[in-house]
Amino acid sequence: MSERITLGHGSGGELTGKLVEEIFIASYGGCRVRRLEDSAIIDGLSGGAAFTTDAFVVRPLFFPGGDIGKLAVFGTCNDLAVAGARPRFLSISFVLEEGLLLDDLRRVCESIGEAAGLCGVEIVAGDTKVVERGAADGLYISCAGIGTLLAEGLGPEAIRPGDAIVVSGPIGDHGSCIAVARGMLKLAGDVSSDCGFVGPAAEALLGLGVRMMRDPTRGGLATVVVEMARASGLGARLDEAAVPVSRQTASVCDILGFDPLYLACEGRLVAVVPADRADAAVAVLRSFNGEAAAIGQFTEGKPRVVLATRVGGQRIVDKLAADQLPRIC
Amino acid sequence: MSERITLGHGSGGELTGKLVEEIFIASYGGCRVRRLEDSAIIDGLSGGAAFTTDAFVVRPLFFPGGDIGKLAVFGTCNDLAVAGARPRFLSISFVLEEGLLLDDLRRVCESIGEAAGLCGVEIVAGDTKVVERGAADGLYISCAGIGTLLAEGLGPEAIRPGDAIVVSGPIGDHGSCIAVARGMLKLAGDVSSDCGFVGPAAEALLGLGVRMMRDPTRGGLATVVVEMARASGLGARLDEAAVPVSRQTASVCDILGFDPLYLACEGRLVAVVPADRADAAVAVLRSFNGEAAAIGQFTEGKPRVVLATRVGGQRIVDKLAADQLPRIC
Repeated sequence: MSERITLGHGSGGELTGKLVEEIFIASYGGCRVRRLEDSAIIDGLSGGAAFTTDAFVVRPLFFPGGDIGKLAVFGTCNDLAVAGARPRFLSISFVLEEGLLLDDLRRVCESIGEAAGLCGVEIVAGDTKVVERGAADGLYISCAGIGTLLAEGLGPEAIRPGDAIVVSGPIGDHGSCIAVARGMLKLAGDVSSDCGFVGPAAEALLGLGVRMMRDPTRGGLATVVVEMARASGLGARLDEAAVPVSRQTASVCDILGFDPLYLACEGRLVAVVPADRADAAVAVLRSFNGEAAAIGQFTEGKPRVVLATRVGGQRIVDKLAADQLPRIC
Repeated sequence: MSERITLGHGSGGELTGKLVEEIFIASYGGCRVRRLEDSAIIDGLSGGAAFTTDAFVVRPLFFPGGDIGKLAVFGTCNDLAVAGARPRFLSISFVLEEGLLLDDLRRVCESIGEAAGLCGVEIVAGDTKVVERGAADGLYISCAGIGTLLAEGLGPEAIRPGDAIVVSGPIGDHGSCIAVARGMLKLAGDVSSDCGFVGPAAEALLGLGVRMMRDPTRGGLATVVVEMARASGLGARLDEAAVPVSRQTASVCDILGFDPLYLACEGRLVAVVPADRADAAVAVLRSFNGEAAAIGQFTEGKPRVVLATRVGGQRIVDKLAADQLPRIC
């Protein structure tokens, strides 16, 4: 079975139809995709909606704990969840490289179907383009998502001095997993990506008066907290010793010189909660992941982030200009 | 000014922020994009909505009459319009190749802003990924769109034997334009793409009891009518002499051996209307483009498309297995 993608699969003709029928519909198509119309008719969005999009170019396509398909679905659904919305509808568009193994595409699509099931979303629209060999790297996915809004008023304006910063589990596992999967180092034992859906944890926090949530993907935890500080106009303190990092990811960082604060997560959320709800928030998050933790707080003062280091010092945390690791998602 | 895209522009860090601020927001960002949140909050979708996505990989990026940015906005809005919806919100995600000229990206984004203005849509969400030199061809765009539904019950089930098929203007100009822009032949004078928004024409037809509409992009007019016939279970007849084709596109087809019936349009619609509304439909469409025409009808019998040729013969029209011209959109 070494059938491969040809330019004809992107023609909109019979070969495209075959791809849609035999791979997309077989893997994740609901009744709306079956109609093969240009647009899907959706409903039930009367209470306000959230809309998001992400492109996925991760290399390699398959890695321990996930693949580009799962990443696309979870990444898009997580963006909706942290906005206080329940994901409902997704669209998936592919750019495929001529020569891609159909079996690899099928595996990615099955993964998309499985992840969509976990998130409770329906994939209702799609598109496929094929480019010549050498004009892409296997396949790229763009995913857009619509969710129904469960809560309003989340955002940096809601953050108050004294609010606690909590994280839903160990950070940086996706980043370190990709580094290992690219052969940047040999490690005894796998690092598995944290690639997953944060929706249930996010919904649980809505009941606790959460001020704002984000999922720390590209740029990691540090970038998210810096952006929150800038957007709220408040300072923030992070306690390095309180930030959960897995043993494997800590090893990868030691060896490769990465800072885990900047490594991507793909199944974690960072939330800001009123100080008196911090314990309750951590308790709720620990019901999903035992390593959830309170890691800092917002403060009066300049909109910058100060890290209290493990050795008792302090340093300013800023966004990186560029990346520790490109094509992480 | 030969600044170029680097991998750092896709990092999610400071360089990404600069790109968003100086190019995306400057070109097309409304207040929602300004918040730089993971999701945009949208509303007013209570009456039912249409949702669609398309990926764009057209080569070259710029061509007479348009570019990849315009194509993305018009293509996505047209998919909504032919579904009986008024386009409202778009998301734009980019895959950029390292080394792309920032000026080229800026030009594409300005084009996106201009086209969005013409279509009356707001761009509310976006994402940018950068891949290494050689892992893409300049830039690819994925666009998803949401529209409010103006009419229900459009679709192949609504088509009846005797219904007329109308087209909103000359076909194939986008396809022939791309062929010329790629240097496949030298032509005296440009062929300009028909790249444009069909929304106003589509809305005008809603008042005339239109049964179904499609925009004939990849695969052209022939593919759309074949799909309509298969989905409705009815036959269709097309009258070759009645199908409008510009002089320039006819020349390109003569020289390169293309069949205009399969060449992509990017600013036309094909509509099915009750027989007694055909004249009115053509009259309405001619108020937008003087060459709109009635080109055939649906019939009882096998779900296949018969073309009455210009020379008095008949032939079966089917979908092509592959493409006359890859990467047309």
